[in-house]
Amino acid sequence: MSEKRQQRDGKQDGTGGTGRGGGPRKAQEIFDATLDLLAEKGYAGLTIEGVAQRSGVNKTTLYRWWPSKGALLGAALIGGRQLDLTLPDTGSLQGDLEALLRTAVELLSTPPACDIAISALGAVTHSPELAGVLRDFFADRISREQPVFTRAVARGELPADADPMLLVDLLAGAAWLRIVLRQAPVDEDFVSRAVHTVLNGACTAT
Amino acid sequence: MSEKRQQRDGKQDGTGGTGRGGGPRKAQEIFDATLDLLAEKGYAGLTIEGVAQRSGVNKTTLYRWWPSKGALLGAALIGGRQLDLTLPDTGSLQGDLEALLRTAVELLSTPPACDIAISALGAVTHSPELAGVLRDFFADRISREQPVFTRAVARGELPADADPMLLVDLLAGAAWLRIVLRQAPVDEDFVSRAVHTVLNGACTAT
Repeated sequence: MSEKRQQRDGKQDGTGGTGRGGGPRKAQEIFDATLDLLAEKGYAGLTIEGVAQRSGVNKTTLYRWWPSKGALLGAALIGGRQLDLTLPDTGSLQGDLEALLRTAVELLSTPPACDIAISALGAVTHSPELAGVLRDFFADRISREQPVFTRAVARGELPADADPMLLVDLLAGAAWLRIVLRQAPVDEDFVSRAVHTVLNGACTAT
Repeated sequence: MSEKRQQRDGKQDGTGGTGRGGGPRKAQEIFDATLDLLAEKGYAGLTIEGVAQRSGVNKTTLYRWWPSKGALLGAALIGGRQLDLTLPDTGSLQGDLEALLRTAVELLSTPPACDIAISALGAVTHSPELAGVLRDFFADRISREQPVFTRAVARGELPADADPMLLVDLLAGAAWLRIVLRQAPVDEDFVSRAVHTVLNGACTAT
Protein backbone atom coordinates (compact mmCIF):
# COMPACT_ATOMS: atom_id res chain seq x y z
CA MET A 1 0.00 0.00 0.00
CA SER A 2 2.69 2.51 0.96
CA GLU A 3 4.66 1.57 -2.12
CA LYS A 4 1.55 2.09 -4.24
CA ARG A 5 0.89 5.43 -2.56
CA GLN A 6 4.49 6.48 -3.16
CA GLN A 7 4.16 5.60 -6.83
CA ARG A 8 1.06 7.73 -7.04
CA ASP A 9 2.66 10.66 -5.28
CA GLY A 10 5.58 10.36 -7.67
CA LYS A 11 3.10 10.60 -10.50
CA GLN A 12 1.68 13.91 -9.24
CA ASP A 13 4.83 16.00 -9.37
CA GLY A 14 6.69 14.02 -11.97
CA THR A 15 9.85 13.84 -9.86
CA GLY A 16 9.08 10.76 -7.81
CA GLY A 17 9.77 12.68 -4.62
CA THR A 18 7.48 12.53 -1.60
CA GLY A 19 7.40 14.45 1.62
CA ARG A 20 8.69 17.69 0.08
CA GLY A 21 6.43 20.69 0.64
CA GLY A 22 2.92 20.49 2.07
CA GLY A 23 1.24 18.80 -0.90
CA PRO A 24 2.48 15.26 -0.88
CA ARG A 25 2.76 15.03 2.89
CA LYS A 26 -1.00 15.45 3.24
CA ALA A 27 -1.77 14.02 -0.19
CA GLN A 28 -4.28 11.50 1.16
CA GLU A 29 -6.30 14.19 2.94
CA ILE A 30 -6.19 16.36 -0.18
CA PHE A 31 -7.37 13.56 -2.48
CA ASP A 32 -10.14 12.48 -0.12
CA ALA A 33 -11.33 16.08 0.32
CA THR A 34 -11.32 16.57 -3.47
CA LEU A 35 -13.53 13.53 -4.08
CA ASP A 36 -15.85 14.39 -1.18
CA LEU A 37 -16.35 17.88 -2.58
CA LEU A 38 -16.93 16.50 -6.08
CA ALA A 39 -19.58 14.13 -4.70
CA GLU A 40 -21.28 16.91 -2.73
CA LYS A 41 -21.14 19.80 -5.19
CA GLY A 42 -20.44 18.33 -8.62
CA TYR A 43 -17.55 19.43 -10.83
CA ALA A 44 -18.85 22.98 -11.19
CA GLY A 45 -18.83 23.38 -7.39
CA LEU A 46 -15.39 21.85 -6.94
CA THR A 47 -12.76 24.53 -6.26
CA ILE A 48 -9.13 24.50 -5.18
CA GLU A 49 -10.21 26.88 -2.40
CA GLY A 50 -12.80 24.39 -1.18
CA VAL A 51 -10.26 21.57 -1.16
CA ALA A 52 -7.83 23.81 0.76
CA GLN A 53 -10.44 24.53 3.42
CA ARG A 54 -11.57 20.93 3.72
CA SER A 55 -8.08 19.42 3.85
CA GLY A 56 -6.45 22.16 5.89
CA VAL A 57 -3.74 22.62 3.27
CA ASN A 58 -2.75 26.06 2.03
CA LYS A 59 -4.27 27.06 -1.31
CA THR A 60 -0.94 28.15 -2.78
CA THR A 61 0.52 24.80 -1.84
CA LEU A 62 -2.22 23.05 -3.77
CA TYR A 63 -1.61 25.24 -6.82
CA ARG A 64 2.11 24.48 -6.63
CA TRP A 65 1.41 20.76 -7.02
CA TRP A 66 -1.65 20.86 -9.27
CA PRO A 67 -2.00 23.82 -11.61
CA SER A 68 -5.75 23.33 -12.17
CA LYS A 69 -8.72 21.67 -10.54
CA GLY A 70 -8.77 19.21 -13.43
CA ALA A 71 -5.22 18.11 -12.63
CA LEU A 72 -6.08 17.83 -8.94
CA LEU A 73 -9.17 15.77 -9.76
CA GLY A 74 -7.08 13.44 -11.91
CA ALA A 75 -4.67 12.80 -9.04
CA ALA A 76 -7.55 12.39 -6.57
CA LEU A 77 -9.46 9.88 -8.70
CA ILE A 78 -6.41 7.64 -8.66
CA GLY A 79 -5.20 8.43 -5.14
CA GLY A 80 -8.43 8.99 -3.18
CA ARG A 81 -9.63 6.28 -0.82
CA GLN A 82 -13.26 6.50 -1.99
CA LEU A 83 -12.53 4.71 -5.28
CA ASP A 84 -9.74 2.52 -3.94
CA LEU A 85 -9.40 -0.93 -5.40
CA THR A 86 -8.44 -3.95 -3.33
CA LEU A 87 -7.17 -6.60 -5.69
CA PRO A 88 -8.87 -9.93 -4.96
CA ASP A 89 -7.00 -13.25 -4.91
CA THR A 90 -9.66 -15.91 -4.35
CA GLY A 91 -7.86 -18.73 -6.13
CA SER A 92 -10.14 -18.78 -9.18
CA LEU A 93 -10.78 -16.41 -12.06
CA GLN A 94 -14.54 -16.62 -11.53
CA GLY A 95 -14.05 -15.67 -7.87
CA ASP A 96 -11.63 -12.85 -8.62
CA LEU A 97 -13.84 -11.35 -11.34
CA GLU A 98 -16.92 -11.63 -9.13
CA ALA A 99 -15.06 -9.73 -6.41
CA LEU A 100 -13.95 -7.04 -8.87
CA LEU A 101 -17.42 -6.68 -10.34
CA ARG A 102 -19.06 -6.65 -6.91
CA THR A 103 -16.75 -3.75 -5.96
CA ALA A 104 -17.71 -1.91 -9.15
CA VAL A 105 -21.43 -2.45 -8.50
CA GLU A 106 -21.04 -1.16 -4.95
CA LEU A 107 -19.04 1.86 -6.09
CA LEU A 108 -21.67 2.75 -8.67
CA SER A 109 -24.61 2.15 -6.30
CA THR A 110 -23.45 3.63 -3.00
CA PRO A 111 -22.87 7.26 -2.06
CA PRO A 112 -20.47 8.97 -2.07
CA ALA A 113 -18.61 6.84 -4.62
CA CYS A 114 -21.53 6.78 -7.08
CA ASP A 115 -21.82 10.56 -6.93
CA ILE A 116 -18.10 10.83 -7.60
CA ALA A 117 -18.38 8.49 -10.58
CA ILE A 118 -21.39 10.27 -12.06
CA SER A 119 -19.95 13.73 -11.46
CA ALA A 120 -16.58 12.81 -12.94
CA LEU A 121 -18.34 11.38 -15.94
CA GLY A 122 -20.54 14.42 -16.39
CA ALA A 123 -17.50 16.67 -16.02
CA VAL A 124 -15.73 14.85 -18.83
CA THR A 125 -18.23 16.32 -21.23
CA HIS A 126 -16.85 19.78 -20.43
CA SER A 127 -13.22 19.67 -21.46
CA PRO A 128 -10.48 17.67 -23.14
CA GLU A 129 -8.36 18.03 -19.99
CA LEU A 130 -10.98 16.10 -18.03
CA ALA A 131 -11.24 13.48 -20.73
CA GLY A 132 -7.51 12.91 -20.22
CA VAL A 133 -8.08 12.67 -16.47
CA LEU A 134 -10.61 9.88 -16.94
CA ARG A 135 -8.36 8.12 -19.43
CA ASP A 136 -5.53 8.12 -16.86
CA PHE A 137 -7.88 6.78 -14.19
CA PHE A 138 -8.95 3.81 -16.31
CA ALA A 139 -5.38 3.14 -17.48
CA ASP A 140 -4.33 2.99 -13.82
CA ARG A 141 -7.18 0.59 -13.06
CA ILE A 142 -6.44 -1.90 -15.83
CA SER A 143 -2.75 -2.01 -14.93
CA ARG A 144 -3.63 -2.73 -11.29
CA GLU A 145 -6.09 -5.46 -12.34
CA GLN A 146 -3.53 -7.22 -14.53
CA PRO A 147 -2.36 -9.75 -11.86
CA VAL A 148 -5.84 -11.31 -11.77
CA PHE A 149 -5.40 -12.30 -15.41
CA THR A 150 -1.74 -13.26 -15.17
CA ARG A 151 -2.65 -15.70 -12.39
CA ALA A 152 -5.60 -17.08 -14.40
CA VAL A 153 -3.33 -17.81 -17.37
CA ALA A 154 -0.81 -19.46 -15.03
CA ARG A 155 -3.59 -21.65 -13.59
CA GLY A 156 -4.66 -22.66 -17.09
CA GLU A 157 -8.08 -20.98 -16.78
CA LEU A 158 -7.47 -18.49 -19.58
CA PRO A 159 -5.57 -18.98 -22.82
CA ALA A 160 -2.30 -17.06 -22.97
CA ASP A 161 -3.67 -14.74 -25.67
CA ALA A 162 -6.74 -13.75 -23.62
CA ASP A 163 -7.60 -10.06 -23.68
CA PRO A 164 -7.95 -8.78 -20.10
CA MET A 165 -9.18 -5.34 -21.17
CA LEU A 166 -12.01 -6.90 -23.16
CA LEU A 167 -13.12 -8.96 -20.14
CA VAL A 168 -12.96 -5.94 -17.83
CA ASP A 169 -14.83 -3.76 -20.32
CA LEU A 170 -17.60 -6.34 -20.71
CA LEU A 171 -18.08 -6.73 -16.96
CA ALA A 172 -17.50 -3.20 -15.69
CA GLY A 173 -19.31 -1.85 -18.76
CA ALA A 174 -22.37 -3.94 -17.88
CA ALA A 175 -22.33 -2.46 -14.37
CA TRP A 176 -22.10 1.09 -15.76
CA LEU A 177 -24.84 0.54 -18.29
CA ARG A 178 -27.18 -1.26 -15.91
CA ILE A 179 -26.73 1.07 -12.94
CA VAL A 180 -25.79 4.50 -14.29
CA LEU A 181 -27.48 4.62 -17.69
CA ARG A 182 -30.33 2.14 -17.59
CA GLN A 183 -30.98 2.69 -13.88
CA ALA A 184 -32.45 -0.77 -13.75
CA PRO A 185 -32.24 -2.92 -10.64
CA VAL A 186 -29.16 -5.09 -10.15
CA ASP A 187 -30.56 -8.50 -9.20
CA GLU A 188 -28.89 -10.50 -6.48
CA ASP A 189 -27.22 -12.81 -9.00
CA PHE A 190 -26.25 -10.14 -11.54
CA VAL A 191 -22.56 -10.39 -10.59
CA SER A 192 -22.27 -14.18 -10.71
CA ARG A 193 -24.31 -14.47 -13.92
CA ALA A 194 -22.36 -11.73 -15.68
CA VAL A 195 -19.02 -13.32 -14.83
CA HIS A 196 -20.27 -16.80 -15.69
CA THR A 197 -21.49 -15.57 -19.08
CA VAL A 198 -18.22 -13.88 -19.96
CA LEU A 199 -16.16 -16.90 -18.89
CA ASN A 200 -18.41 -19.71 -20.19
CA GLY A 201 -20.69 -18.14 -22.78
CA ALA A 202 -24.45 -17.63 -23.01
CA CYS A 203 -25.01 -20.10 -25.83
CA THR A 204 -26.84 -23.35 -25.45
CA ALA A 205 -24.33 -26.07 -24.51
CA THR A 206 -23.76 -28.33 -27.49
CA MET B 1 -41.42 2.37 -39.58
CA SER B 2 -44.56 4.48 -39.84
CA GLU B 3 -46.25 2.30 -37.24
CA LYS B 4 -43.24 2.71 -34.96
CA ARG B 5 -43.24 6.44 -35.51
CA GLN B 6 -46.95 6.60 -34.76
CA GLN B 7 -46.40 4.70 -31.52
CA ARG B 8 -43.74 7.18 -30.56
CA ASP B 9 -45.88 10.16 -31.37
CA GLY B 10 -48.64 8.63 -29.30
CA LYS B 11 -46.17 8.41 -26.43
CA GLN B 12 -45.38 12.12 -26.59
CA ASP B 13 -48.85 13.46 -25.90
CA GLY B 14 -50.28 10.49 -24.08
CA THR B 15 -53.37 10.39 -26.29
CA GLY B 16 -52.13 8.30 -29.18
CA GLY B 17 -53.26 10.94 -31.62
CA THR B 18 -51.08 12.16 -34.45
CA GLY B 19 -51.48 14.93 -36.93
CA ARG B 20 -53.32 17.22 -34.56
CA GLY B 21 -51.71 20.64 -34.05
CA GLY B 22 -48.23 21.53 -35.33
CA GLY B 23 -46.20 19.36 -32.93
CA PRO B 24 -46.72 15.84 -34.08
CA ARG B 25 -47.03 16.73 -37.75
CA LYS B 26 -43.44 17.96 -37.78
CA ALA B 27 -42.34 15.68 -34.95
CA GLN B 28 -39.43 14.26 -36.93
CA GLU B 29 -38.00 17.70 -37.69
CA ILE B 30 -38.44 18.72 -34.05
CA PHE B 31 -36.69 15.61 -32.72
CA ASP B 32 -33.83 15.89 -35.19
CA ALA B 33 -33.38 19.59 -34.41
CA THR B 34 -33.38 18.84 -30.67
CA LEU B 35 -30.62 16.26 -30.98
CA ASP B 36 -28.58 18.42 -33.36
CA LEU B 37 -28.73 21.31 -30.90
CA LEU B 38 -27.80 19.04 -28.01
CA ALA B 39 -24.78 17.80 -29.97
CA GLU B 40 -23.71 21.33 -30.88
CA LYS B 41 -24.34 23.20 -27.65
CA GLY B 42 -24.66 20.60 -24.88
CA TYR B 43 -27.64 20.35 -22.56
CA ALA B 44 -27.05 23.78 -21.04
CA GLY B 45 -27.24 25.36 -24.49
CA LEU B 46 -30.33 23.42 -25.56
CA THR B 47 -33.44 25.62 -25.45
CA ILE B 48 -37.03 25.24 -26.61
CA GLU B 49 -36.50 28.55 -28.45
CA GLY B 50 -33.51 27.12 -30.30
CA VAL B 51 -35.46 24.04 -31.32
CA ALA B 52 -38.33 26.23 -32.51
CA GLN B 53 -35.96 28.26 -34.70
CA ARG B 54 -34.16 25.24 -36.09
CA SER B 55 -37.30 23.22 -36.84
CA GLY B 56 -39.48 26.09 -37.96
CA VAL B 57 -42.15 25.17 -35.42
CA ASN B 58 -43.77 27.77 -33.20
CA LYS B 59 -42.38 27.92 -29.65
CA THR B 60 -45.83 27.84 -28.04
CA THR B 61 -46.65 24.73 -30.06
CA LEU B 62 -43.57 23.01 -28.68
CA TYR B 63 -44.50 23.98 -25.12
CA ARG B 64 -48.01 22.63 -25.68
CA TRP B 65 -46.59 19.18 -26.47
CA TRP B 66 -43.55 19.13 -24.19
CA PRO B 67 -43.73 21.21 -21.02
CA SER B 68 -39.94 21.30 -20.50
CA LYS B 69 -36.75 20.84 -22.45
CA GLY B 70 -36.14 17.64 -20.48
CA ALA B 71 -39.43 16.19 -21.73
CA LEU B 72 -38.62 17.27 -25.28
CA LEU B 73 -35.16 15.68 -25.05
CA GLY B 74 -36.72 12.44 -23.81
CA ALA B 75 -39.01 12.29 -26.82
CA ALA B 76 -36.19 13.26 -29.19
CA LEU B 77 -33.76 10.61 -27.91
CA ILE B 78 -36.34 7.96 -28.77
CA GLY B 79 -37.77 9.58 -31.90
CA GLY B 80 -34.75 11.35 -33.45
CA ARG B 81 -33.13 9.82 -36.50
CA GLN B 82 -29.58 10.33 -35.18
CA LEU B 83 -29.87 7.48 -32.67
CA ASP B 84 -32.21 5.35 -34.73
CA LEU B 85 -31.86 1.61 -34.47
CA THR B 86 -32.31 -0.71 -37.41
CA LEU B 87 -32.95 -4.17 -36.06
CA PRO B 88 -30.67 -6.71 -37.75
CA ASP B 89 -31.85 -10.14 -38.92
CA THR B 90 -28.75 -11.92 -40.20
CA GLY B 91 -29.92 -15.44 -39.46
CA SER B 92 -27.56 -16.03 -36.53
CA LEU B 93 -27.30 -14.62 -33.02
CA GLN B 94 -23.59 -13.91 -33.48
CA GLY B 95 -24.39 -11.96 -36.65
CA ASP B 96 -27.27 -10.04 -35.12
CA LEU B 97 -25.31 -9.10 -31.99
CA GLU B 98 -22.31 -8.05 -34.09
CA ALA B 99 -24.59 -5.79 -36.12
CA LEU B 100 -26.12 -4.27 -32.97
CA LEU B 101 -22.73 -3.75 -31.33
CA ARG B 102 -21.25 -2.29 -34.52
CA THR B 103 -24.09 0.22 -34.57
CA ALA B 104 -23.41 1.12 -30.92
CA VAL B 105 -19.68 1.53 -31.61
CA GLU B 106 -20.43 3.78 -34.57
CA LEU B 107 -22.93 5.85 -32.59
CA LEU B 108 -20.44 6.36 -29.77
CA SER B 109 -17.51 7.11 -32.11
CA THR B 110 -19.04 9.32 -34.80
CA PRO B 111 -20.33 12.90 -34.58
CA PRO B 112 -23.01 14.00 -34.08
CA ALA B 113 -24.36 10.85 -32.41
CA CYS B 114 -21.42 10.57 -30.01
CA ASP B 115 -21.85 14.19 -28.92
CA ILE B 116 -25.54 13.50 -28.32
CA ALA B 117 -24.73 10.43 -26.23
CA ILE B 118 -22.07 12.20 -24.16
CA SER B 119 -24.16 15.32 -23.68
CA ALA B 120 -27.26 13.35 -22.70
CA LEU B 121 -25.16 11.40 -20.24
CA GLY B 122 -23.59 14.51 -18.78
CA ALA B 123 -27.01 16.13 -18.51
CA VAL B 124 -28.31 13.20 -16.50
CA THR B 125 -26.05 14.27 -13.67
CA HIS B 126 -28.11 17.47 -13.40
CA SER B 127 -31.63 16.37 -12.58
CA PRO B 128 -33.89 13.44 -11.69
CA GLU B 129 -36.12 14.36 -14.65
CA LEU B 130 -33.23 13.71 -17.02
CA ALA B 131 -32.39 10.47 -15.27
CA GLY B 132 -35.96 9.38 -16.08
CA VAL B 133 -35.45 10.46 -19.69
CA LEU B 134 -32.43 8.21 -20.04
CA ARG B 135 -34.22 5.34 -18.32
CA ASP B 136 -37.06 5.61 -20.85
CA PHE B 137 -34.58 5.67 -23.73
CA PHE B 138 -32.89 2.44 -22.62
CA ALA B 139 -36.23 0.76 -21.84
CA ASP B 140 -37.34 1.58 -25.40
CA ARG B 141 -34.09 0.15 -26.79
CA ILE B 142 -34.26 -3.19 -24.99
CA SER B 143 -37.88 -3.72 -26.00
CA ARG B 144 -36.98 -3.05 -29.63
CA GLU B 145 -34.00 -5.45 -29.43
CA GLN B 146 -36.11 -8.29 -27.98
CA PRO B 147 -36.87 -9.99 -31.36
CA VAL B 148 -33.15 -10.75 -31.84
CA PHE B 149 -33.26 -12.92 -28.72
CA THR B 150 -36.68 -14.45 -29.37
CA ARG B 151 -35.41 -15.64 -32.74
CA ALA B 152 -32.19 -17.00 -31.20
CA VAL B 153 -34.17 -19.06 -28.69
CA ALA B 154 -36.40 -20.33 -31.51
CA ARG B 155 -33.28 -21.37 -33.49
CA GLY B 156 -31.93 -23.21 -30.44
CA GLU B 157 -28.93 -20.89 -30.11
CA LEU B 158 -29.91 -19.58 -26.68
CA PRO B 159 -31.57 -21.45 -23.82
CA ALA B 160 -35.16 -20.35 -23.17
CA ASP B 161 -34.18 -18.78 -19.83
CA ALA B 162 -31.42 -16.62 -21.36
CA ASP B 163 -31.29 -13.04 -20.10
CA PRO B 164 -31.29 -10.63 -23.08
CA MET B 165 -30.74 -7.56 -20.93
CA LEU B 166 -27.59 -9.08 -19.44
CA LEU B 167 -26.20 -9.81 -22.91
CA VAL B 168 -27.01 -6.31 -24.15
CA ASP B 169 -25.53 -4.72 -21.04
CA LEU B 170 -22.30 -6.70 -21.40
CA LEU B 171 -21.87 -5.78 -25.07
CA ALA B 172 -23.17 -2.21 -25.16
CA GLY B 173 -21.55 -1.57 -21.76
CA ALA B 174 -18.19 -2.65 -23.16
CA ALA B 175 -18.61 -0.16 -26.01
CA TRP B 176 -19.48 2.66 -23.59
CA LEU B 177 -16.60 1.86 -21.28
CA ARG B 178 -14.04 1.40 -24.03
CA ILE B 179 -15.03 4.42 -26.11
CA VAL B 180 -16.56 7.00 -23.77
CA LEU B 181 -14.82 6.35 -20.46
CA ARG B 182 -11.55 4.64 -21.26
CA GLN B 183 -11.15 6.46 -24.58
CA ALA B 184 -9.04 3.58 -25.76
CA PRO B 185 -8.92 2.52 -29.38
CA VAL B 186 -11.53 0.05 -30.64
CA ASP B 187 -9.54 -2.54 -32.57
CA GLU B 188 -10.87 -3.84 -35.83
CA ASP B 189 -11.98 -7.11 -34.24
CA PHE B 190 -13.38 -5.62 -31.02
CA VAL B 191 -16.96 -6.27 -32.12
CA SER B 192 -16.52 -9.88 -33.22
CA ARG B 193 -14.36 -10.78 -30.21
CA ALA B 194 -16.75 -9.17 -27.72
CA VAL B 195 -19.74 -11.03 -29.17
CA HIS B 196 -17.81 -14.30 -29.41
CA THR B 197 -16.73 -13.99 -25.76
CA VAL B 198 -20.25 -13.33 -24.49
CA LEU B 199 -21.71 -16.19 -26.53
CA ASN B 200 -18.93 -18.77 -26.13
CA GLY B 201 -16.91 -17.71 -23.10
CA ALA B 202 -13.33 -16.59 -22.61
CA CYS B 203 -12.21 -19.65 -20.70
CA THR B 204 -9.79 -22.20 -22.03
CA ALA B 205 -11.73 -24.89 -23.88
CA THR B 206 -11.80 -28.05 -21.78
